[in-house]
Amino acid sequence: MKSHTKYLWFHTEQKRAYINITREVEQAVTESGIREGLVLVAAMHITAGVYVNDAEEGLLQDIDDWLEKLAPTGPNYRHHRTGETNGDAHLKNLLIGHEVILPVTEGRLDLGPWQQVYYAEFDGQRRKRVVIKVIGE
Amino acid sequence: MKSHTKYLWFHTEQKRAYINITREVEQAVTESGIREGLVLVAAMHITAGVYVNDAEEGLLQDIDDWLEKLAPTGPNYRHHRTGETNGDAHLKNLLIGHEVILPVTEGRLDLGPWQQVYYAEFDGQRRKRVVIKVIGE
Amino acid sequence: MKSHTKYLWFHTEQKRAYINITREVEQAVTESGIREGLVLVAAMHITAGVYVNDAEEGLLQDIDDWLEKLAPTGPNYRHHRTGETNGDAHLKNLLIGHEVILPVTEGRLDLGPWQQVYYAEFDGQRRKRVVIKVIGE
Repeated sequence: MKSHTKYLWFHTEQKRAYINITREVEQAVTESGIREGLVLVAAMHITAGVYVNDAEEGLLQDIDDWLEKLAPTGPNYRHHRTGETNGDAHLKNLLIGHEVILPVTEGRLDLGPWQQVYYAEFDGQRRKRVVIKVIGE
Repeated sequence: MKSHTKYLWFHTEQKRAYINITREVEQAVTESGIREGLVLVAAMHITAGVYVNDAEEGLLQDIDDWLEKLAPTGPNYRHHRTGETNGDAHLKNLLIGHEVILPVTEGRLDLGPWQQVYYAEFDGQRRKRVVIKVIGE
Repeated sequence: MKSHTKYLWFHTEQKRAYINITREVEQAVTESGIREGLVLVAAMHITAGVYVNDAEEGLLQDIDDWLEKLAPTGPNYRHHRTGETNGDAHLKNLLIGHEVILPVTEGRLDLGPWQQVYYAEFDGQRRKRVVIKVIGE
């Protein structure tokens, strides 16, 4: 079994941002030399997520509106008694998920025609990290 | 390390449908000859999902109602400016998740007593695909 | 390839409970002797979940309130025609997810600074199980 591990760093200008990282994941797969296996892509923070969906600008806005509707920014989280102000970002992380796992087939990231891998930042303007780990043979 | 990859095709009659694919996943595990490992089951589309829950007709309706409540069908998605009408299906995909990863133990799919694997179609009436990949030894 | 499988049992006093199982997962990784790989942590029930987030008491309450808001307890689930009363617990499971998969790097669970692994019970007061499976080398 072979493995390959790589970390991506982010420091977004906005509090919330959606960044297409499909090429970085594909590059990690190529670097690994793995032909058949799995690749894990995971946010290493509890206020960010990773998901797979479409690279369409309107949809990115729809996703942001929807996350804000179901897990709204606001002052009334118990978590804020600690001095934090990012209660909503924790819930957005739970809604979207912090990781995806994707197939590697014949040496390539085996995604469907419109599937793109996104890093979703919910509490940005600071350094955050994603881990990519490919395992297989 | 061994691996086994298989694709399932779907073409549902309805726009939304929930299809129990547990047997297909079990069969892929058997075919792989793998005794200890993991199996990934992933929708290859951004308007469909894969989840694990109960095979109970009432609950399937409850799940559909709930998804429609939290990620409703409607005309007001920015994504629709592209000509698409399936904004809700993208959000339902994000809510339910596009993939699950399940343990293979002693040559069998290691699920709890009521756990069943479902393909969830949110924008059907066309050909869609699921990838199953078993890795292990 | 090596693998190591372990089951955790729970029997909560309350109907809903959030239990930090990070140490148990770290222990399973150490026992496995695996240096590079993946670890799956999965609820084996359809009314419980596993997620990664912060070990902060206020936030745990926020998460419980939020799950109850988006997937409320109530009498009006079709699933209840079977005699069950836990329709909400099935939806909470779908919202939070039943499993996470985490990286193992240099023999350790490779989590970010605040990431903790939680077992989320949504229909407790009975024996429930989580499977941990580490694979790698």
